[in-house]
Amino acid sequence: MRLTKLRQLMAQLDYQALLLTEPLNIRYLSGFSGSSASLLITAERQFLITDYRYTEQAETECAGFDIVCRDRSAQSLGQCIAALLRPLPVNRLQLEYGHLSVELFSQLQHDLPLTLSPSTNLAEQMRACKDPHELKCLRQAASIADSALAWLLPQLQLGMTEREAADLLQQKIYALGADELAFPTILLSGERSALPHGKPGQRRFQHGDFILLDFGARIEGYRSDMTRTVVLGQASAEQQQFYQTVFNAQQAALAAVKPGISGHQLNHIAQQVLNASPYAAYAGEGLGHGVGLALHEYPLMRRGCQVALQADMVVTIEPGLYKPGFGGVRIEDDIVITRHGYQLLTLSPKQLQQLPA
Amino acid sequence: MRLTKLRQLMAQLDYQALLLTEPLNIRYLSGFSGSSASLLITAERQFLITDYRYTEQAETECAGFDIVCRDRSAQSLGQCIAALLRPLPVNRLQLEYGHLSVELFSQLQHDLPLTLSPSTNLAEQMRACKDPHELKCLRQAASIADSALAWLLPQLQLGMTEREAADLLQQKIYALGADELAFPTILLSGERSALPHGKPGQRRFQHGDFILLDFGARIEGYRSDMTRTVVLGQASAEQQQFYQTVFNAQQAALAAVKPGISGHQLNHIAQQVLNASPYAAYAGEGLGHGVGLALHEYPLMRRGCQVALQADMVVTIEPGLYKPGFGGVRIEDDIVITRHGYQLLTLSPKQLQQLPA
Repeated sequence: MRLTKLRQLMAQLDYQALLLTEPLNIRYLSGFSGSSASLLITAERQFLITDYRYTEQAETECAGFDIVCRDRSAQSLGQCIAALLRPLPVNRLQLEYGHLSVELFSQLQHDLPLTLSPSTNLAEQMRACKDPHELKCLRQAASIADSALAWLLPQLQLGMTEREAADLLQQKIYALGADELAFPTILLSGERSALPHGKPGQRRFQHGDFILLDFGARIEGYRSDMTRTVVLGQASAEQQQFYQTVFNAQQAALAAVKPGISGHQLNHIAQQVLNASPYAAYAGEGLGHGVGLALHEYPLMRRGCQVALQADMVVTIEPGLYKPGFGGVRIEDDIVITRHGYQLLTLSPKQLQQLPA
Repeated sequence: MRLTKLRQLMAQLDYQALLLTEPLNIRYLSGFSGSSASLLITAERQFLITDYRYTEQAETECAGFDIVCRDRSAQSLGQCIAALLRPLPVNRLQLEYGHLSVELFSQLQHDLPLTLSPSTNLAEQMRACKDPHELKCLRQAASIADSALAWLLPQLQLGMTEREAADLLQQKIYALGADELAFPTILLSGERSALPHGKPGQRRFQHGDFILLDFGARIEGYRSDMTRTVVLGQASAEQQQFYQTVFNAQQAALAAVKPGISGHQLNHIAQQVLNASPYAAYAGEGLGHGVGLALHEYPLMRRGCQVALQADMVVTIEPGLYKPGFGGVRIEDDIVITRHGYQLLTLSPKQLQQLPA
């Protein structure tokens, strides 16, 4: 089904053959979940090229594909592809230039008697709209994140370290049935919450801290990605205003979500709210990203991204303010685009929570 | 110190400037632990180029570097580099062709008025020999794996799924202080243990199963990587012989480890033992790999790898037999090369353990 769609796109672009080297594209098209393979697709044949470590797994996971076990010590990838294509009417090969190293490309140029050229991001475009099973996995991954957060928040207390809190959260995510974390948890407190992608450290929670939690779960490879920011104890007036600004920016963007609007436009809407506040200088870049097998995938919600949103796309909406020395606030949801608007996948409360301290 | 060494290597090769795009090389040289940056090194200047998300983190982590915050919407990486190099006496730039996409390379070619050419793997070579702090982290990561395994094995029982056992193990690894897992745990049972890189699934343990556990912990980015294979219940005579073959192959390779020997030679020694057994047809390829910030790094222990081992290199020794329909056995240790031999980092018992069932 996915392969049929891919071949239609290939035919429209007059591709004879396509080599896929991006692991998630390979997984999406073939079902292969290992870490070392490439896919070779022509109008009539489909090969998954791997090595002895993954051959048995590929035979189980990739029904309908010819599994090619390459001896990496004896044959280069280019030699292997040349042998597979020799009997076929192929003299041009499209490659994923964004996911192919210059080194491997040079080897392929040397070994392949074919015209090589870049492919457009066909698999990435296909992956942007999720099918019902993918949506089910994403909902479950989001639900685990919601449950883990609801379980964790009452346990946060003065003197606990960021690392301790992150460990608790991660253990709960596994206990709730995640296959893996979506990514290493970001859990930052106090002025460290201003690091948009910092790591949990040995800082201990203090009264009045912002605590920013950005985390997620993975179900069958599909990831959730949610951020909430809370205050431990009583929030100051400035913290409340700072938080409310981000909240308003997120609400403004969400209110505009519907098929046809672009990530560029949504980002602009959120940025307008942030820019109109006293905190304009502290606004983060960008508003969000597609999420699925990859943590960041098509379509992007940022300046210059003109792709129109479509039903069944899943994206994050995550405006943030980051003021060095003061702290940061980010509020992030995963949403699925519907025919007339959107539906939240992450359902945790978003009004500022002031935890007992 | 590391930068001084890198510049010496650059001078020997007559490099004017080097752009590093491999994240672990960047971390090793600069201390930057985020996921999006590049390093530009000349004879006298060192720039870490990142974006707003990581600027504050970079300023904390990368003392001595000029931190360049690039606005990704307004300036390409090539334009940024061109501006930085313009005042400097540089007209040639070396790139990491193995860690640079064809797409980014094309953009750099377009934007840079410089001669671009490939660098040899300078940072990878430097990373192969570990300093005392790196060794301390690796020892701690190995020790956590040992403790977690000793805690887990008595809890394995009939009817438990691979996934349940893997979750228990992973929770313990975090509880023992790991920053992260070294990699997603491989925990396979029965005939599935013949999948060299399979994922834990819903199969339930049965009497007489091989259970193969391949896992590790991360401390400050440094990874341990250990495999043990046990039998749940009484091992059959064939299981015992199969296991003993792998054990003997590992012992033979370990006995030969010392500075000066190559991964090619060690692999040959282990393969000779496997090939002389009734199970020659089921021998896995390769014997191991360097381990550190990356799970697989220089030097490799396989056919064709002629690099001579040196003191303070850390590598895995992990022969295996994989017989489809029967099962697989792998025994893997992390070792550090010493002046006259080696020292084990992973200390878990290796004689065949038959767990009560």
